[in-house]
Formats: sequence, structure tokens, C-alpha cells
Amino acid sequence: MSRLSINQQTVKQLSLPELVKACAAVGVDKVGLWREPVAEYGLERSARLFADAGFSVTSLCRGGFFTAVEPETRRRALDDNRAAIDETAALGAPILVLVSGGMPDRDLVGARQRVVDAIAELAPYAAERGVKLAVEPLHPMFASDRCVVSTLAQALEIAERFPVDQVGVCVDTYHLWWDPELATGISRAGDRIATYQLADWITPLPAGVLTGRGQIGDGCVDFPAFTAVVESAGYDGPIEVEIFNDELWRRDGAEVVAEIAERFPACVGKPS
Amino acid sequence: MSRLSINQQTVKQLSLPELVKACAAVGVDKVGLWREPVAEYGLERSARLFADAGFSVTSLCRGGFFTAVEPETRRRALDDNRAAIDETAALGAPILVLVSGGMPDRDLVGARQRVVDAIAELAPYAAERGVKLAVEPLHPMFASDRCVVSTLAQALEIAERFPVDQVGVCVDTYHLWWDPELATGISRAGDRIATYQLADWITPLPAGVLTGRGQIGDGCVDFPAFTAVVESAGYDGPIEVEIFNDELWRRDGAEVVAEIAERFPACVGKPS
Repeated sequence: MSRLSINQQTVKQLSLPELVKACAAVGVDKVGLWREPVAEYGLERSARLFADAGFSVTSLCRGGFFTAVEPETRRRALDDNRAAIDETAALGAPILVLVSGGMPDRDLVGARQRVVDAIAELAPYAAERGVKLAVEPLHPMFASDRCVVSTLAQALEIAERFPVDQVGVCVDTYHLWWDPELATGISRAGDRIATYQLADWITPLPAGVLTGRGQIGDGCVDFPAFTAVVESAGYDGPIEVEIFNDELWRRDGAEVVAEIAERFPACVGKPS
Repeated sequence: MSRLSINQQTVKQLSLPELVKACAAVGVDKVGLWREPVAEYGLERSARLFADAGFSVTSLCRGGFFTAVEPETRRRALDDNRAAIDETAALGAPILVLVSGGMPDRDLVGARQRVVDAIAELAPYAAERGVKLAVEPLHPMFASDRCVVSTLAQALEIAERFPVDQVGVCVDTYHLWWDPELATGISRAGDRIATYQLADWITPLPAGVLTGRGQIGDGCVDFPAFTAVVESAGYDGPIEVEIFNDELWRRDGAEVVAEIAERFPACVGKPS
């Protein structure tokens, strides 16, 4: 339970102070944050809010979107990522999660290469500020419009080009559960696992598919088995619950946080 | 152009005789069929319709749905697949496409094993009737509710347990285009490629995601490059266009067939 971190987007109906209150009420002292609500509340003010409450910020979402072809768009993306790294450091978060970006044309291989090139530019900048970059593979259904990195093996091939303290991977159950090479990939990942995130897979998917993630325990992901593999690889850090779901967003946020805290021990417990 | 086969579901608004007419009007003499419309028109009558028109039936969709746990459901699925094999033979089609089935519980590994077990029961039966089974990997977004075989590598691991004339794989651009291991997989597949199907990937996906396939040329799939890899692996058989798309279904079916025939040469042409 001490490892549970609530990702702010899971209960985006709550203000940041409400998030602190809802977490504290059920003994949770970790959160994952997103840039936009932090900017809205104020960067310094957000850092102070969580520090004063004795909370850790386990990650910031998100940098990335590295696949543009035009030099000017590309330069702006890199500038924006340096800002995201600065914000991660200001929040005292160890990890900036990277969503690589989609395909501007039909050249998937080229887009993937531009992701590598961008991370090569950013990794030293991040390292100087004590921030590790976490390459997140997204489910293949997002490959064209959001993230050309679709499997853990691909994310590792990128991360392994850099020092382990500079670039790791984000292991998210929602994106990876279906992968027949998952156990091999997680075992290979070892200390490259920068963050571990939970959401369940439920169907039918909604139009646009972005907000179709399920509350933990509602879908087909075998969380105990998945978590056992992640732990065998040596990961013992925070476990973030990050769910985008219209129904959860319509509910009372504090109630959703309490439900997650209630379900969490069974999800990360020993496989049956 | 002589390799183009129109899958009936692409223009399901047409009756089978209308399909023959629409294809013949643009010089196409191959179709892929589905069991339900064939049963509706009559099996013998369908076979005669296409034979009299000088058409080849390149494949029948679909067998499969092998993942049930309960013995009775499982037995019924096997019986139904034997019927599908008989129908394939009656139509003179060389290939029955198999969609493996989804997850009845959280045991993905177990579900995948039951697919292998079912194919082991069916392959000899199919071979005796001159029918090859084609294991089709479906996009990972269908893994929970439709098909636990998600990658070409997985489909090959199943197919390779059987003689090459009994079990092959279905290579469908829609399901596989995103896979970073695609070229390796297709090269490994070689003469295991039983059928090659085209549909484009477009976004946003509709609710339920099943009918979100794009007309060839409308999306991000690099068909010339994909086709070049398939041909390098030695495949020179029919190329089926199989698209499920509400917009195409609302249009005049003959016009859709003509549009496919018009776009087809550029899609399977040399990579630029």
C-alpha cells in the first residue's frame, strides 16, 4: 500500500488540493502529475502543496511528441521537452514520461528514428537536472496518431542506447498486457524500469479509444501475475494507477481514490 | 491486377450475384467469401454462381473461436469448424481463415494454448478435404474479445507445429502494419503465407473499433513497402481487399469495387 501512487488524470475532476486530501484520507502519499493542471495551479505552488503535505511526486506526464519532420516544429518540440524536464525537477519528481508521437506520413521507420534522435539531445539535459526520461510504449492502436513506440522491446532498444540513470522505460499494464513477449521484455528491462503504471483493459472501446481504460479489477489484466514479473525484474518503486475513463471522471473523485486504494492490495498481491 | 480478390464483406451491401457483376465489370475474377451470406444464398448455389462466372473463391472467413473453457462449448466450436471446412471445400476455396477467439477469463496463456489444441484436432480433417487453415493474427486491440493471437510471430509459432500444406497464416496489413518485427516475421513466414489481405489504418477509431478500417490509400499503411516484403518471402497468390467500414457500406457497392480496382495497382506496385 505504501507503493501506491494516484495519477492525477485518474481523478482529474479534483483540484490539486482536493487530490491531496482524497489521497491522505486513505493513507496514500504519492501522486503522478500532468503538466497542464500543474501549470494552471502554478509550478512553485504545486511543488509546495505536495511537499508541505509530505507527498512524493512519482512522475510527471508528459514529454515527447518527437516525430515531426519540419525543423521548426521539431525545434519547438525539443524546447517544450526541456521545459518539461525543468518542471519535473522543480516538482522534485524523478521521472518524466515520454509519449513519442505519431506518424506525420507513412514512414514509420523514419518516425521511430526521430524519436531516438530527440532523446539523444534531451538525455544529458535531463541528467544534469536529476531527471530520468521514461520511454513509454503505447498500445499499437495508438501507433499512427500518438506513439510510434508500441512494444516494450522497442522502448528498451531506445533506452539501452543511453546510460541507465538517464533513460528508462515506463511499463504500463494497459499498453502491454497482450504482448506475448512481455515476460521476456520485463526481465530484460531490469533496472531500466523507471515507472510501473496500472490500468485495466475493458471492452467495448469508446470512439477515439483514448478514454476506454478500466478501473483496476474491472477487466482482463492479470495484475498479480504482471506485478510478479515486474518485481522479479527488480523493480520495487512506486506503482501508479493511471486511468482515463469517462465514467470514473463523472464520479466523486475522493470515492474513486478510495476504491483504488481498496482494490490495490489484491491487484499487486501474490498471483493466485 | 490479376491478383486482386474482393472480399465480400468489403461490399456486403451487394448480393452475391451483384458482387460477381461488380467485379466482372472491372476485370476482377476473384472473391473472398464469408460463411453467413453464403449460407443465406445457399452453399451449392454459391459455388455454382462463382464457378459459372469463371471466378475463383480465394478464401472463406471464418473458422476459429477456439478459446472456450467449458467442454460442451468447445465441442460445439470444433463441430462448427468442421462444418466451415466442409463449406470451404464445397466452394473450391483453398483456405479457411481462423480467428482464434478472445479471453473467457484472465488466463491469456491458457486461451492461447486452447487455440493450438483445437487446430491440432482440425488440421488433419481439413487436409483430407484439400483445405489449408490460415491462422490470422488480429490487431492487439482485439486480444481480449476476439483473437488472442496478436502478432505474426505468434501465428507462426502455432502454424509451424503442423505440415506447411495444412496450416499457414493470414497476413493482413490492417492487423500487422505497426509491428516492429514485421519484416522478420514475414521473411520467416515464407510459404506459410496462406493469404495476404489489405485494409488501411485510419483514425479516429469508431466505438467498438471493428468497423474502423480504411479504404486502401486513405490511411498510413505503406502498401508498396509491405507488399514488397510479402513478395520477397515468396508469396505470389491472390491479394484480398477486406475492409469493414460503415461509410463504404453506405456507398454504391459497384462504385466501391471500381475504386478498389483503380487504387490497387499503386498499392501493390514497387515501393517509391
